[in-house]
Amino acid sequence: MGSKYPRSMRGCLPLWTLMLEVALILIFFFFTSYDSTSKDHRTVGNEQGLLQDVTVMAALGLGFLTSSLWRYSWSSVAFNFCMLALGVQWAVLVDGFLDQLSLEKVVIRLSSIQRATMSALSVLISAGAILGKANLVQLLVMALIEVTAFSATRTLDKEVLHSNDHLSLMYIHVFSAYFGLTVAWCLSRPLPKEVEERHQRAVSPGLFAMLGTLCLWMFWPSFNSILLTGDERKKAILNTYYALAASTVMAISMSALAHPRGKINMTHIHNAVLAGGVAMSIPGHQIPEPWIAMVLGLTAGLISIGGAKCLPVCFDHLLGIHDTCGVHYTFGLPGLLGGIAYIVLMMQETSWIMTSVFHQMLISSGTLGLYMAMGLASGLLTGLLLNVRIWRASHVAKYFDDQAFWEFPHLAVGF
Amino acid sequence: MGSKYPRSMRGCLPLWTLMLEVALILIFFFFTSYDSTSKDHRTVGNEQGLLQDVTVMAALGLGFLTSSLWRYSWSSVAFNFCMLALGVQWAVLVDGFLDQLSLEKVVIRLSSIQRATMSALSVLISAGAILGKANLVQLLVMALIEVTAFSATRTLDKEVLHSNDHLSLMYIHVFSAYFGLTVAWCLSRPLPKEVEERHQRAVSPGLFAMLGTLCLWMFWPSFNSILLTGDERKKAILNTYYALAASTVMAISMSALAHPRGKINMTHIHNAVLAGGVAMSIPGHQIPEPWIAMVLGLTAGLISIGGAKCLPVCFDHLLGIHDTCGVHYTFGLPGLLGGIAYIVLMMQETSWIMTSVFHQMLISSGTLGLYMAMGLASGLLTGLLLNVRIWRASHVAKYFDDQAFWEFPHLAVGF
Amino acid sequence: MGSKYPRSMRGCLPLWTLMLEVALILIFFFFTSYDSTSKDHRTVGNEQGLLQDVTVMAALGLGFLTSSLWRYSWSSVAFNFCMLALGVQWAVLVDGFLDQLSLEKVVIRLSSIQRATMSALSVLISAGAILGKANLVQLLVMALIEVTAFSATRTLDKEVLHSNDHLSLMYIHVFSAYFGLTVAWCLSRPLPKEVEERHQRAVSPGLFAMLGTLCLWMFWPSFNSILLTGDERKKAILNTYYALAASTVMAISMSALAHPRGKINMTHIHNAVLAGGVAMSIPGHQIPEPWIAMVLGLTAGLISIGGAKCLPVCFDHLLGIHDTCGVHYTFGLPGLLGGIAYIVLMMQETSWIMTSVFHQMLISSGTLGLYMAMGLASGLLTGLLLNVRIWRASHVAKYFDDQAFWEFPHLAVGF
Repeated sequence: MGSKYPRSMRGCLPLWTLMLEVALILIFFFFTSYDSTSKDHRTVGNEQGLLQDVTVMAALGLGFLTSSLWRYSWSSVAFNFCMLALGVQWAVLVDGFLDQLSLEKVVIRLSSIQRATMSALSVLISAGAILGKANLVQLLVMALIEVTAFSATRTLDKEVLHSNDHLSLMYIHVFSAYFGLTVAWCLSRPLPKEVEERHQRAVSPGLFAMLGTLCLWMFWPSFNSILLTGDERKKAILNTYYALAASTVMAISMSALAHPRGKINMTHIHNAVLAGGVAMSIPGHQIPEPWIAMVLGLTAGLISIGGAKCLPVCFDHLLGIHDTCGVHYTFGLPGLLGGIAYIVLMMQETSWIMTSVFHQMLISSGTLGLYMAMGLASGLLTGLLLNVRIWRASHVAKYFDDQAFWEFPHLAVGF
Repeated sequence: MGSKYPRSMRGCLPLWTLMLEVALILIFFFFTSYDSTSKDHRTVGNEQGLLQDVTVMAALGLGFLTSSLWRYSWSSVAFNFCMLALGVQWAVLVDGFLDQLSLEKVVIRLSSIQRATMSALSVLISAGAILGKANLVQLLVMALIEVTAFSATRTLDKEVLHSNDHLSLMYIHVFSAYFGLTVAWCLSRPLPKEVEERHQRAVSPGLFAMLGTLCLWMFWPSFNSILLTGDERKKAILNTYYALAASTVMAISMSALAHPRGKINMTHIHNAVLAGGVAMSIPGHQIPEPWIAMVLGLTAGLISIGGAKCLPVCFDHLLGIHDTCGVHYTFGLPGLLGGIAYIVLMMQETSWIMTSVFHQMLISSGTLGLYMAMGLASGLLTGLLLNVRIWRASHVAKYFDDQAFWEFPHLAVGF
Repeated sequence: MGSKYPRSMRGCLPLWTLMLEVALILIFFFFTSYDSTSKDHRTVGNEQGLLQDVTVMAALGLGFLTSSLWRYSWSSVAFNFCMLALGVQWAVLVDGFLDQLSLEKVVIRLSSIQRATMSALSVLISAGAILGKANLVQLLVMALIEVTAFSATRTLDKEVLHSNDHLSLMYIHVFSAYFGLTVAWCLSRPLPKEVEERHQRAVSPGLFAMLGTLCLWMFWPSFNSILLTGDERKKAILNTYYALAASTVMAISMSALAHPRGKINMTHIHNAVLAGGVAMSIPGHQIPEPWIAMVLGLTAGLISIGGAKCLPVCFDHLLGIHDTCGVHYTFGLPGLLGGIAYIVLMMQETSWIMTSVFHQMLISSGTLGLYMAMGLASGLLTGLLLNVRIWRASHVAKYFDDQAFWEFPHLAVGF
């Protein structure tokens, strides 16, 4: 269709989601049952508390973090929410089947939903790269594929490279960022001048994006430590906290340095203050001293601000990747920094026999490489699939526009 | 008074509230004391955590959920807050007296405030139906009566029908919805054209309403399980979570189906995504498999969206009930669905002797009927009382208007 | 410089913060280590939960509470956040050194960060008084000094007057309010007419300030009880809750009484509903009956609304203290009320031997006086220091203006 009018989601969206939900219910009917072992009152309370922390990060944090596009805030928050709801249902199944590597009944526990929410976070992170350029059906398809791909990668990592449950989850930022960037590359179209302008002008992040940032900031120590116990958990919390504090101070002042008249860019802040937390994901539980966490947080903040200033230009114009919400420098680069720091830390910890150090380095780098490669590969697959006509993608003239999806009482009133 | 100018709340409001507060303090002075049994550190921490969850739902969740009226958002949030603060103080006393069925000293525990907050939630739900049409004094009077009526109904239910504490609380949605609708019916006046237009145009729900929705969504599993222990608690949490996820996906896609050009209605979303949680309130702890919860959540989402499309027309024009925030299809209908599901579940659980099944059905339906009937009856009483002149109700021309109650620095600046 | 153009923060801010962060990292390198004693899973979970409560209060609560200035909301939230991040890093060190009164290695625990966040709150409270009139460098300098001064005062109190850890922290509101007021007095300049107008018009607090208020309100019981155990903790929670509820109802109705046409002032509400919680800080754990807490909460609400109506006039015009966010009547006066209530309570509790009562009164009043005096003295010092030219303070014409610090995509678009 050459028409500039938005293609209606009426036929497509309800049909797909109804079919999906029915299919999910059938799978749940045949293949799941509740855990019947009884737990004491406090354990249930503890697990529920952690589940809530993660849900706050996913629904409030990532939902509002991406709400900074001026005319796309409704879609950002609501589509994020919908992807989360679908992603969690699907992730419980995929995680369950891949955990037992068979088609037996999956036993559902409180911790299953907690982990499923964390898997679904990968989708919410990746979605930031293609926000405003994909409709809800495409996003839901992406959610299904990405959750599957991430779970499969984790299983591969656990089976082959013997990572534990915590560590394999912490590569989520690297995986999601490169997954999202590849999808964005596949979906990239030359934007008409007025759309580009809309996107440019649109970047007027309000306090809602700040709210999202703060919610993520506050609960990040919880996210980085949720699957750990004892001393490692305590270290992960403390290190994440220090790294976040250092990257916050750094991000704000570096943003002022990057502007010719010393003005701070709000969008950079939203992303860069979180860089410390991302960088702590992988090595957080191994760092023995607070100053290392602070140095890493500071470096992550620097990288993130640097990326925000330089990357859009080179990525947009050279590679044609349009990264709507800066997923690359918010999650990708700090995640890589964390991965590299972890490699160095693991090399130091092993006894100083050369073969052992070399072996350790090989494994840690292999893991990091695995997640990047799988992210790129599955992202490419998803990107190609999303280009198929049947999803009735938005016309490029309707990119970054809430009015393509939402009913407004009277046009443009009371935004 | 035929004047269109708003009647000042100056004389009325401070006088009433001061008298009320002094009366409350006197009752607390004569009839309450703190619990002196000492509890260990962790129990206090746990109870406080649950209290906070409920408070977040009441103050943030329901406060911002109803903030979608364009020119009435300040009043929505602040009046909700004030009703909560008064309702909790009163509910502690009423619950205490009705629990011991005597006028002895009420012992106040942490759990007293937790339950009182949950009772006060009934007022906040009902208030959604008359928001914008009642002033703060009327709302506070309603708070006092509704808390009393709800506590009395619960006591009746517990004494006569032998419900337990958890179950009797979970009928709150049905009770509150029909209470609110009846009060709305009593207060209904033909709206002048410009007010109706203001209300119509006003439905421009922003991200704040979304924030409220998300807060409710995240803490609903906590609400549905707060008075349970062990296995039942775990089941209630899991079922509520699945039902919420299913109703979220359903609500968003059905809203697109209901619009001729496939656009999603934000107001419908705010209400319908919660339908799954409401439907799980009564049967949540009894549902043995996740797929049942998902089917119920999906159905609740459908009913809620269907109600949002069809009910306003028939209720507004035929019965003259103007339900400002859609309390009927957010809390009423999904609550009924949950009640009916519970009846069916209980019938299945009892042994297949016909008399026992019949007896069980009678009791469950009787309970549901009791809460509906008491809601309607006490709502009628309250509605008639609120029509009395002494409350100095707002003139109909000032409905849905913040300026009747709030001091704006310069008119209409900086909203 | 006589120029009206804002002095760029480009040179100053990044240089200072980088130096600060490097210094902090060096101190952490030489003088800190992680606690190596292992704790069980639940204790870590509990401590982390309390840490999160305090962080929510600091980042969301105080951040958004002060966001009510119309053209200064970005700065309010982001500067608050930056001060918090720096303040916590510094407070961990200062608290650690002053606790052991030596330069040995400071052992960092989860509770260290929790206490550090609470110390950093003092800065966030004081900053309310000079918001819009100081740039970020000045605020960060103030953060360093105030955290040090507050910790020193606490150590003095604990060593000389034998207060415990909880009580010495609870004087934070009194200390911070008078610290902030003194700094505001030192920084006071005659405002040009258009700036004063901007400030006047600016007071159009939206729902974000309400969000901040509600976050503080909900977590205040947690704040007042965080360092207590057992029965005292329970009492502090309950008393704080009752006082908050009473002051909320009172504040809203008194605000209507104070306006000639009975309209409620939103700004007053934001501050006065919290007065009950502030008043409970010092005596909360000692009050034996709920009605006393309610009476105090009610009185605190009255004082706060009264202060909001009368104090700005007399402080502004007579003393030349311009208290941007009403720190005096939000934290100062209710804190004093709490301090006095504590003196009375302690006198009643001691046996009725005259010397003992007198001795007790002397100690309690001495403590209150100590915090006030130290607040005033260190505030004066800080104020004088902040007047030095090197901080490149904003020109008075740029007070209360986000555009002096932030990059806007297109001027004034999409606020």
